[in-house]
Amino acid sequence: MIITAVNVQIFSYPTRRAVDSAGHAHPGDVTQASMALLRIKTECGNEGYALGAPELIRPYVLDGFVRKVLVGANAFDREKIWHDLAHWQRGSASQLTDRALALVEQALWDWAGRKLNVPVHKLIGGYRDKVPAYGSTMCGDELPGGLSTPEEYGRFAETLVKRGYKAIKLHTWMPPVSFAPSVAMDIKACAAVREAVGPDIALMIDGYHWYSRTDALTIGRALEKLDFAWFEEPMMEDSAESYAWLAGQLDIPILGPESLGGKHLSRASWVKNDVCDILRAGVAGVGGIAPCLKVAHMAEAFGMDCEIHGNGAANLAVVGAIKNCTWYERGLLHPFLNYDEVPAYLKRLVDPMDEDGFVHLSDLPGLGEDIDFNYVETNTQHSY
Amino acid sequence: MIITAVNVQIFSYPTRRAVDSAGHAHPGDVTQASMALLRIKTECGNEGYALGAPELIRPYVLDGFVRKVLVGANAFDREKIWHDLAHWQRGSASQLTDRALALVEQALWDWAGRKLNVPVHKLIGGYRDKVPAYGSTMCGDELPGGLSTPEEYGRFAETLVKRGYKAIKLHTWMPPVSFAPSVAMDIKACAAVREAVGPDIALMIDGYHWYSRTDALTIGRALEKLDFAWFEEPMMEDSAESYAWLAGQLDIPILGPESLGGKHLSRASWVKNDVCDILRAGVAGVGGIAPCLKVAHMAEAFGMDCEIHGNGAANLAVVGAIKNCTWYERGLLHPFLNYDEVPAYLKRLVDPMDEDGFVHLSDLPGLGEDIDFNYVETNTQHSY
Repeated sequence: MIITAVNVQIFSYPTRRAVDSAGHAHPGDVTQASMALLRIKTECGNEGYALGAPELIRPYVLDGFVRKVLVGANAFDREKIWHDLAHWQRGSASQLTDRALALVEQALWDWAGRKLNVPVHKLIGGYRDKVPAYGSTMCGDELPGGLSTPEEYGRFAETLVKRGYKAIKLHTWMPPVSFAPSVAMDIKACAAVREAVGPDIALMIDGYHWYSRTDALTIGRALEKLDFAWFEEPMMEDSAESYAWLAGQLDIPILGPESLGGKHLSRASWVKNDVCDILRAGVAGVGGIAPCLKVAHMAEAFGMDCEIHGNGAANLAVVGAIKNCTWYERGLLHPFLNYDEVPAYLKRLVDPMDEDGFVHLSDLPGLGEDIDFNYVETNTQHSY
Repeated sequence: MIITAVNVQIFSYPTRRAVDSAGHAHPGDVTQASMALLRIKTECGNEGYALGAPELIRPYVLDGFVRKVLVGANAFDREKIWHDLAHWQRGSASQLTDRALALVEQALWDWAGRKLNVPVHKLIGGYRDKVPAYGSTMCGDELPGGLSTPEEYGRFAETLVKRGYKAIKLHTWMPPVSFAPSVAMDIKACAAVREAVGPDIALMIDGYHWYSRTDALTIGRALEKLDFAWFEEPMMEDSAESYAWLAGQLDIPILGPESLGGKHLSRASWVKNDVCDILRAGVAGVGGIAPCLKVAHMAEAFGMDCEIHGNGAANLAVVGAIKNCTWYERGLLHPFLNYDEVPAYLKRLVDPMDEDGFVHLSDLPGLGEDIDFNYVETNTQHSY
């Protein structure tokens, strides 16, 4: 099954996500955003797709690396293609990023699933057909009625529980929010949410990522009293020593690393050195579904859980095929937005959640993205 | 794809492999041996197969564990089925062995490959279409003209190189051979083989498994002088400390663990504690293709190679789908036997080797075992 073409369509779609001066998503007015549809085609006419940010897969990335490795290769040779692309990254990682690598690999999985008429999670080897989701909030803001006070977090948490969520993860305030970062406000928001939802909802926090060791310890102790399920990325992940210091003192599980580079190899170092209690990896962050599975399986070999970072079809496929993960991350969520609204370029949600808080794995062949190709065609800005 | 039936046929086939009083295979007269064909059937009528020793999958294993977990399950849910069976092993591992677990899991992979019309190595994600093999000799013996002297090892090595092998692994003498174990004889055999094949053939040794630390060190130093590629299992693998002691002193890579239980979890301990230089796992030994992949991928995350133990279609499928493995183990070989002869119950070899020493991965759907079902039917002794 030789790959004959790899193409990209950049199309526009309406969004209500706005990005602040530090890169965090918040609700905003409806604007037009751009999305890339990566399309891999084989000699038999079958195609595989992946959706991602246009900047990941600019023409120089597609021509400089992706087409060179993929065109002429067997689309089933995912492991070979992945390693060949990963080798290209030496010296070129600023162009061919791990996220670009993940996008390409994702499209190869999607191709295989569509070609074989099987969902990707079953291709990997299924573990489950549904998974409980945690509602993952947007970062705090200064929008009245939004996520601007601990009380607003509490009220939003109540609506999430009504929607069915059995777990909630707070992203708290970060600069440029005027009062951020604030240890005291983070703790207050966590306390307000615990108060609002009672003892039976699992809670986690993912706040400011540049706290000092001692601030992180202060928050961690407060979270222990509030019976939080995990404490995520309070410090720069480049300092494994800081995480080992923190994890060594706290009972609350420390989760990581999420944004650290180094794919499955850096996670191996964290595991070896007892840097965290629960491992973390997401498909985009570690360069694909296969390396994400490698991280999760390594965690299993060490008796650790591995919670998968991020929403979307590819992460959900991984969650569906591993045992040592409790939750699917659904979001980001905000009082002003409706996550259950289907994006314009899809015909249905990739992660529909029932009223008991379970997300159901897709039965569709491939990754489970039911792409509205008519919409994409109609709204294509340019192709290459 | 619900599993509706799991059945076993025990059939006889002629073999020239005889087993000595300590369980090692040697050439012998033609006798009839028994083999189990495990057959998993789904509602759509598709079947998956695995071949193995009858004692792995006796009726009480099939009824007590396998059918309970499999019948009614989705055949694509390999990860779920594997964990459910593995949980049964607590307290029952003497009945439901890791090898039995592997047999069942292998049949599920074969089912998926046959169902989807794809070789299993491509289903996993292919890395290569051919792999160099090492000729893996039988253990030494006292058969004149066989493997009874260092010189005979040397002569046999020459014929293996003529056949195309670019690497040879010696299994040396073990009790009940009268003069075994013998550090001196092991070293002499290694020296004779190096002398016979010259400097450009890769050589490895897998000898007596119960040497003392100091005997192992003596052999290791001799192997370093003979430029051997690895040193395999010279001591009991239950003593990880002994391996760490040995690996810490020798430059020649120490390979392991092979026969140690504990699946991917025990390998994690070896990796964490720098017990070996090259990791080892085989499909049967670690309970299946998936755990074998988990070991290999963990090794990759730690920058280590993982050489796959044993011949056969399932191990070859793993080798075909991973990068960090140099060789396929082809054998066991002996001057009196012809490994290239197709077993009576197959229509072709699972691991055909060309004259350059490369084994070619199968294009057949499933694991690549071209089973002669007529032969199996005709020679079935009993079924359950």
